[in-house]
Amino acid sequence: MEITKENISDWLKGLQDSICQALETEDGSGKFKEENWIREEGGGGRSRVIENGEVIEKGGVMFSAVSGKTPDFLLKEKEHSVSSSSAQTESTFFATGVSIVIHPKSPLVPIIHMNIRYFETSNGTKWLGGGIDLTPHYIVDEDASFFHGKLKEVCDKHHYSYYSEFKTWADNYFYINHRKETRGIGGIFFDRVNQNEHLNFEQNFAFWQDVGKAFAPIYVELMHKNKGKAYTDDQKQWQLLRRGRYVEFNLVYDKGTKFGLETNGRVESILMSLPAIAGWVYDYKVKEGSEEQNTLNKLKKGINWVS
Amino acid sequence: MEITKENISDWLKGLQDSICQALETEDGSGKFKEENWIREEGGGGRSRVIENGEVIEKGGVMFSAVSGKTPDFLLKEKEHSVSSSSAQTESTFFATGVSIVIHPKSPLVPIIHMNIRYFETSNGTKWLGGGIDLTPHYIVDEDASFFHGKLKEVCDKHHYSYYSEFKTWADNYFYINHRKETRGIGGIFFDRVNQNEHLNFEQNFAFWQDVGKAFAPIYVELMHKNKGKAYTDDQKQWQLLRRGRYVEFNLVYDKGTKFGLETNGRVESILMSLPAIAGWVYDYKVKEGSEEQNTLNKLKKGINWVS
Repeated sequence: MEITKENISDWLKGLQDSICQALETEDGSGKFKEENWIREEGGGGRSRVIENGEVIEKGGVMFSAVSGKTPDFLLKEKEHSVSSSSAQTESTFFATGVSIVIHPKSPLVPIIHMNIRYFETSNGTKWLGGGIDLTPHYIVDEDASFFHGKLKEVCDKHHYSYYSEFKTWADNYFYINHRKETRGIGGIFFDRVNQNEHLNFEQNFAFWQDVGKAFAPIYVELMHKNKGKAYTDDQKQWQLLRRGRYVEFNLVYDKGTKFGLETNGRVESILMSLPAIAGWVYDYKVKEGSEEQNTLNKLKKGINWVS
Repeated sequence: MEITKENISDWLKGLQDSICQALETEDGSGKFKEENWIREEGGGGRSRVIENGEVIEKGGVMFSAVSGKTPDFLLKEKEHSVSSSSAQTESTFFATGVSIVIHPKSPLVPIIHMNIRYFETSNGTKWLGGGIDLTPHYIVDEDASFFHGKLKEVCDKHHYSYYSEFKTWADNYFYINHRKETRGIGGIFFDRVNQNEHLNFEQNFAFWQDVGKAFAPIYVELMHKNKGKAYTDDQKQWQLLRRGRYVEFNLVYDKGTKFGLETNGRVESILMSLPAIAGWVYDYKVKEGSEEQNTLNKLKKGINWVS
């Protein structure tokens, strides 16, 4: 396809369709509810939210394509050395993407997040960004290796250094600094990619599409493998605490969330990422040698899951 | 008493004792657990946390007194016009305070927050700060008037303009901008007060002490009045959503929380403010004419509760 903003947002809508379809099929009973919304300043979106499914307790697969006057701070963050000529600050932008967060009912099925986004300005800036990361309530080495292995496959197809670069980026990004814990087992993350020392824009675009296409088969496999397993009340309780950490990350650190809340974004779409229910216990201590402790021990940067 | 930092922190410890005593008595079964902690960089605190009481589901009455090298940004925020001489940036600080958040079990008992704090530097800065605000899950006009009436009494005893000034400050501070909602019905809030156009430091200190002393009788009265009332599962569900908003405020906006998390504060003490359990429902709509809608309608700045 020719890479135009219209083609990109059409492709993302198709991706949203196919992901919702795959998730509904694996869930077995939950159905996405669709809502189309319009942004006053330009553009809009198509929200798809699922609640109280058989496997998925709460989740969203959100498409948006918005446009308007480019906010100054967006460009400045990376281009602070460039003097802000009026031509630059008065540019218009177009941004489109698909964002997904799935909170399963069972503590034995991991939380997953995926986002791919494209941003351009009338001045010629074109940026690709995205990532997939997994937050198991209980870390299972086999699943973690499967997950990272699949992401490595996607990356390796495009450039041999991408998995290692973008895995490190995810480790650093999905980090709850005040807890000194990663949010989960990471995955891949990249932002503001156009051409780089490895690939040109078209090649990076193909990689970006493959990240989007990888989501459904990966998560469907993890749902399928774990959804039937029995769990205890204690494990459900632990899930609430892990979800509490997820809330902490999203509200304190996540750049997309901050950006959305500060720029008068659609609150319900932005905070779709929060779980149906989450909990906090004062100074909770895990038992020595428990599965919970095993999980905490692995919420660290720099673990190599695909050796 | 002579106003020295030692006397202030001793007085605060006494206040913590008397508040815990009053809350335990009214709760009937819950007991505070105490933990003493030391801050590596200087000072420490005495945490008192109550969980699974008869009335209180989760709450903390936290005392701390910490010291160290004054962080630059703390002074700069208000004193940006003053050039930062090395004498100033290398000053030491002392900060002491009592912070309280109480999350009751019943949705018919309001959440309450109180904080009083004192800050000084070796350069002679002395600041008093504090406030009390109430977050009812369901706003009851009579309780709101009682609450604000008591705060007005405390303020009026010291200066006729304080209630109006500090009530407005609370309305603006306890505001969830992305929701366009106040956190609750507000209360009073003030920060960085030394002498001002109304009172000298000693007089403001007396006011500050009275704010601290007002907390227990006010909240005990609200517990007592509402704790025996029967409530429904739907009301309990609504409580989870209101607590979700509380989490949003604390993690996204609250300056004390941000400051604590960014300066390597004691995470468990800082996040004691979060409820045992909270919830989020996508795009939740209240029923026309319901008590929930009545509450949302009153989560606004500028309501006069003591006319």
